[in-house]
Amino acid sequence: MIVTKLTEAFGLRHPIVLAPMGGVAGGRIAAAVANAGGLGLIGGGYGDREWVARELAIVKDATRGPWGIGFITWSMRREVLDLALAQRPRAVMLSFGDPRPHARAIKDAGCTLICQAQGEEEARLAQEAGADLVVAQGTEGGGHGGSRSTLPLVPAVVDWVAPTPVIAAGGIVDGRGLAAALMLGAEGALIGTRFCASDEALGRERQKARLVAARGSDTARTRVFDIVRGYDWPAPYTGRALRNRFTAQWNGREHALAEALDVEQARYRTAADEDDYETALVWAGEGVDLVRSIEPAATLVARIAAEAEARLREGVRHVR
Amino acid sequence: MIVTKLTEAFGLRHPIVLAPMGGVAGGRIAAAVANAGGLGLIGGGYGDREWVARELAIVKDATRGPWGIGFITWSMRREVLDLALAQRPRAVMLSFGDPRPHARAIKDAGCTLICQAQGEEEARLAQEAGADLVVAQGTEGGGHGGSRSTLPLVPAVVDWVAPTPVIAAGGIVDGRGLAAALMLGAEGALIGTRFCASDEALGRERQKARLVAARGSDTARTRVFDIVRGYDWPAPYTGRALRNRFTAQWNGREHALAEALDVEQARYRTAADEDDYETALVWAGEGVDLVRSIEPAATLVARIAAEAEARLREGVRHVR
Repeated sequence: MIVTKLTEAFGLRHPIVLAPMGGVAGGRIAAAVANAGGLGLIGGGYGDREWVARELAIVKDATRGPWGIGFITWSMRREVLDLALAQRPRAVMLSFGDPRPHARAIKDAGCTLICQAQGEEEARLAQEAGADLVVAQGTEGGGHGGSRSTLPLVPAVVDWVAPTPVIAAGGIVDGRGLAAALMLGAEGALIGTRFCASDEALGRERQKARLVAARGSDTARTRVFDIVRGYDWPAPYTGRALRNRFTAQWNGREHALAEALDVEQARYRTAADEDDYETALVWAGEGVDLVRSIEPAATLVARIAAEAEARLREGVRHVR
Repeated sequence: MIVTKLTEAFGLRHPIVLAPMGGVAGGRIAAAVANAGGLGLIGGGYGDREWVARELAIVKDATRGPWGIGFITWSMRREVLDLALAQRPRAVMLSFGDPRPHARAIKDAGCTLICQAQGEEEARLAQEAGADLVVAQGTEGGGHGGSRSTLPLVPAVVDWVAPTPVIAAGGIVDGRGLAAALMLGAEGALIGTRFCASDEALGRERQKARLVAARGSDTARTRVFDIVRGYDWPAPYTGRALRNRFTAQWNGREHALAEALDVEQARYRTAADEDDYETALVWAGEGVDLVRSIEPAATLVARIAAEAEARLREGVRHVR
């Protein structure tokens, strides 16, 4: 058992948070992580009302442990936030956009406000919103993020937002990464890609198989999947995904893609329906080098925590 | 005192290596780091014979501690390597290029061979060369490097090259970063940018002042300084430097820069001579957020080591 401000805040057994991956972190895996002693965050994503309502029902049915929900701030409608708050999540996490207009509603609901920061600007907004916890997210992470790397970003965010506790994200997949996050001054780790390759994650089996086969060097940050799917992401954010024929064709030619959208959107949708991941996207973080199996989420939580404990115990033995 | 395979290999008091920064890590700072209990590596860079001979004489005169020298492999001529080996360095570090043709000469001289890896390919070449130590260098680092980030890269390299010991590099500037590196499975940290902002580093005072004033978000990877300086770097490597008017003008327009080289080269040289860092380059890693002072190298070594020891001691207290 590792005790930090994060575990104390939620009564966790392990300082591990399931990243609220849109469409992937549903109620089932959020409950599995919560039941295993971590904090399970549902991936509310762009805020699809039906999806959110369904997954909220699933998590409430499957756990009495601590769970919450994350949203993409610039896309979230208030009615979907209210729908979530009515289910009494322990935490709401806001990423990518100004959290300040929503902070009051979240805190008034008795909910812990977690804000994600990719750099100095987001850290400042998190503080102004009165965030209870700040996630410092490095560019290594799969899916949407910024351009700063986890190892130097985390201590910088810790200093900027002190005394607000910080959670490290981006590139953390095993106990070595979790122990490193704690040394950097974080109170725990938010983990995405590793939980994608779990039994309980939503997502197609062939996507999970691609993750297990991939190397970190197969991943890259790109805008082309946002463009072809019709999402108007604000400028500083890109998504880290496995490179494929689609990224090879369109990276660096984003304007041409936008002009060919009618044809390409139809082609993309067909590919996604047909599990063709040479065109369709598989989000993946750089840490995918260390993802070599699909396992139950509870097994992953237990192993990551045990490895981190062992590392922390060994670490002090180096000091003479 | 932190004991690892790195400290045992060289008889160090601290698992800290001065990055062999070309033109910056001269004999004086290499000696200062060695005298403070770390490993001091002179930055042999492209292999300028006169510079190398002078700095070798300085380090030999100033320390009996462990020192070595690093070279840019693709640029290094054998006669300069032989010149260095004749001075009996404890280590030679090879970066950026195939180390295999030089490994025998280095090992036959009784020297420890350190190879730097930015990813899987370089890790494989390091193993084939029989490297005694492998530096896993993340994209966070200042100066030349690759595209992978330190936190997920280090454990991946540890697994790839096991049982060869690994040193972490890129984004490490304080004891938090060093302690994190050890948790990731590294045996120590190779530190550059933090030592740039030291009394003993070569380089202009205004460059050092720029480092102290800069933010991590002011840095970016670029090729334009290599192009304008006439260095023909192999494709995967770029340099992380402070962004300025020159990068704003030419990033993304590298072909145009190559065509305007006569004019731009003259302009660049004048700017460098005149300490004009809106045109001339200042190498800087992302960790520069945490660099807020110019201090003696020995002070930095002692503080980083003491912070790391404190972190490692605190870390185990989190385990219940």
